[in-house]
Amino acid sequence: MSLFGQVTIIGVGLLGGSLAKICKQQKLAGKVVGFGRSAERLEQAKQLGLLDRGETDLKAAVENADLVVLCSPVATIVPLVRDLLPFLKPGCLITDVGSVKQSLVTKIESFLPDTIHFVGSHPIAGGEKSGFEAASADLFQGAKCIVTPTSKTDASALAKIKELWQKTGMEVIDMDMEEHDFIFGAVSHLPHVIAFTLMNTIGELSSRNYDDITSFSGGGLKDITRIASSNPVMWRDIFVSNKAPMLELIDTFSATLHKVRSLIEQEDGKTLEQTCETANKYRLNLT
Amino acid sequence: MSLFGQVTIIGVGLLGGSLAKICKQQKLAGKVVGFGRSAERLEQAKQLGLLDRGETDLKAAVENADLVVLCSPVATIVPLVRDLLPFLKPGCLITDVGSVKQSLVTKIESFLPDTIHFVGSHPIAGGEKSGFEAASADLFQGAKCIVTPTSKTDASALAKIKELWQKTGMEVIDMDMEEHDFIFGAVSHLPHVIAFTLMNTIGELSSRNYDDITSFSGGGLKDITRIASSNPVMWRDIFVSNKAPMLELIDTFSATLHKVRSLIEQEDGKTLEQTCETANKYRLNLT
Repeated sequence: MSLFGQVTIIGVGLLGGSLAKICKQQKLAGKVVGFGRSAERLEQAKQLGLLDRGETDLKAAVENADLVVLCSPVATIVPLVRDLLPFLKPGCLITDVGSVKQSLVTKIESFLPDTIHFVGSHPIAGGEKSGFEAASADLFQGAKCIVTPTSKTDASALAKIKELWQKTGMEVIDMDMEEHDFIFGAVSHLPHVIAFTLMNTIGELSSRNYDDITSFSGGGLKDITRIASSNPVMWRDIFVSNKAPMLELIDTFSATLHKVRSLIEQEDGKTLEQTCETANKYRLNLT
Repeated sequence: MSLFGQVTIIGVGLLGGSLAKICKQQKLAGKVVGFGRSAERLEQAKQLGLLDRGETDLKAAVENADLVVLCSPVATIVPLVRDLLPFLKPGCLITDVGSVKQSLVTKIESFLPDTIHFVGSHPIAGGEKSGFEAASADLFQGAKCIVTPTSKTDASALAKIKELWQKTGMEVIDMDMEEHDFIFGAVSHLPHVIAFTLMNTIGELSSRNYDDITSFSGGGLKDITRIASSNPVMWRDIFVSNKAPMLELIDTFSATLHKVRSLIEQEDGKTLEQTCETANKYRLNLT
């Protein structure tokens, strides 16, 4: 017996494609339908065995769904839920994979009818590659998945969504959406802001004889700026969607940087050394 | 015919040990002497064939030297040069491998007698490992080496030091010491300040239910903070020794970060996206 009848995946990329693959392989869904903008791409995903059916029409994609999973970019999730709601059958569940939760969940709950249940999710999975060609049934294995129930969340809907993510191999953790946005703002979104900013700061500099001083850089700069290669549209949306925690975290970082600046200015070697030692310890603690 | 008679290497670690190895293998020196604090460690380096002789006494180490290479930490270079000067024979050359140049070179030139010649060097080489056990004749191969002659530099001394570094396999580049400190402040020292600061900012945070939020971090945070594992004493000295450029660069970074913060606050998605795209391009350009 499948966990769900029809599962419709909105946005068949790396995450959506991997979830589709698992739904098919583990028979978690009676039928897997994909929604996307390109009929050609959906046909390719179908040929790879990820989908039973691809649809570029939203109504056709979701009208028989028992579960709709939004795997599209963060900024598209709220408008898509609003657009697809009229086509859903009563009792349908909706979840998403967005990296930001409070602004999405609050908006969706504000217009969700009683007959449809929404649970916010954030599987901490992904990778360098994108697109369903890189889809893998192992993508979620061993990863954490945050679900963010609220006082409005239906208990049985929450249980079913958690069961789905557990079957993909993830450790599922309940978390308040505000706490989620602060934590991921800190460990993921802030580092991206810093990487983009550092890369631009150094990239814009020139010296008397060198327009491009990065030709003198080594492996250290490559490591610290690797995530400055990340997708501009995705990160633009995450930064804006997680605005309040981002502003707070940038201010906290700036205050810490200002302290280090003062230590250098005062040539306070002892405290500078302790500062670097503390960073060493925190770094060693990263798993 | 060797390039030098006796070469004395002050500080037989990764860089000093690798230079010693090359001097022996290529017969660049008639004799290679190492100076260090531990007789036991020097004996081990001698057993490995890196040195002809190890000395813990500065006079004994340098009194017959034709070239002294300071491979000790940045903060020790000026005091060591001051201490060893009285023991040198006329015509002796001195160079160093310090990551900061202006504060060192200016101080050394201020007390250098006419009979001794100093040339500031900065081989852009190193690695994860430290200690002479990791010494390798290939360490410098293909790397850049900056030399920073001044109006006081002796032309034939400069030519000999450049020849030495070229024979280690490096591309030797003449650079004004002020330009050197700005460029390496930007591409190396600033990223280290940022990595230490980011690691401490995130490490100090906690959420309502989690004292250690870094347990939710992924590969991105590990990459961006890898250099936060770097040696505290070494970086403390570099930051303080390169104070003026560091303060200017931190301020430039802070101004760029403040702009990004404003874009998030104003929800200016279009400019944020362009900012990330620019960072993508600069990152792609790193070799």
